[in-house]
Amino acid sequence: MMNTDSANRKFEKELKSGTAALILLGVIFASGRPMYGYQITKEIETASGRPEEKHLFRQGALYPVLRSMERSGILESEIEPSVSGPPRRYYSLTEDGGKILEDWKVTWQNTKDLVDDILKGKDDV
Amino acid sequence: MMNTDSANRKFEKELKSGTAALILLGVIFASGRPMYGYQITKEIETASGRPEEKHLFRQGALYPVLRSMERSGILESEIEPSVSGPPRRYYSLTEDGGKILEDWKVTWQNTKDLVDDILKGKDDV
Repeated sequence: MMNTDSANRKFEKELKSGTAALILLGVIFASGRPMYGYQITKEIETASGRPEEKHLFRQGALYPVLRSMERSGILESEIEPSVSGPPRRYYSLTEDGGKILEDWKVTWQNTKDLVDDILKGKDDV
Repeated sequence: MMNTDSANRKFEKELKSGTAALILLGVIFASGRPMYGYQITKEIETASGRPEEKHLFRQGALYPVLRSMERSGILESEIEPSVSGPPRRYYSLTEDGGKILEDWKVTWQNTKDLVDDILKGKDDV
């Protein structure tokens, strides 16, 4: 028998995988400026206010997602020198990325409605 | 360049995978009685009110999830004869399954709060 903690960790992980792309785009869009990896991770930590969310996007997990979104034309990036270390790659949404974020918000709202209706046990929907 | 439709289908798929287990438990719990596969699929279709959600749990995709949840002790099942065809396997939540659903609701609420805060672009959270 799976204990309830490990069942919850598994569910949390699935839910994070499912929302990761939306969170990423949302954070970069909301900042209104190009962002580099560490800033994105920090912003998600701040938004969540929960230390356990630190692992939502560990640095190592974040970069492949950013690169894949760039390849898909959702994000674009530019390398800028940094005063305090190596150059940084700054990511921003492309025009298509902006449209995709709008679509994803609708999909997110629909999913929330569906899940919440089911959890409320509504029979009339 | 990935077109916006295929980007949205990809995101929809990820989001469905992430919420599938919660939707399943929620549907069976809300019904207040043991349910068999086809009933569960129908209930999700009805709740969603959208024909495209039919594929959220195609029959073929549903059964492995039900069986895996039974192996984990979240669900239990009983085979009952059917007047109209082969016997049916009815699933219900175990006591642990009930606790797990409560945990998952909290996780779901936290994830919704996080994503919605980010999408609202709140800087003060």
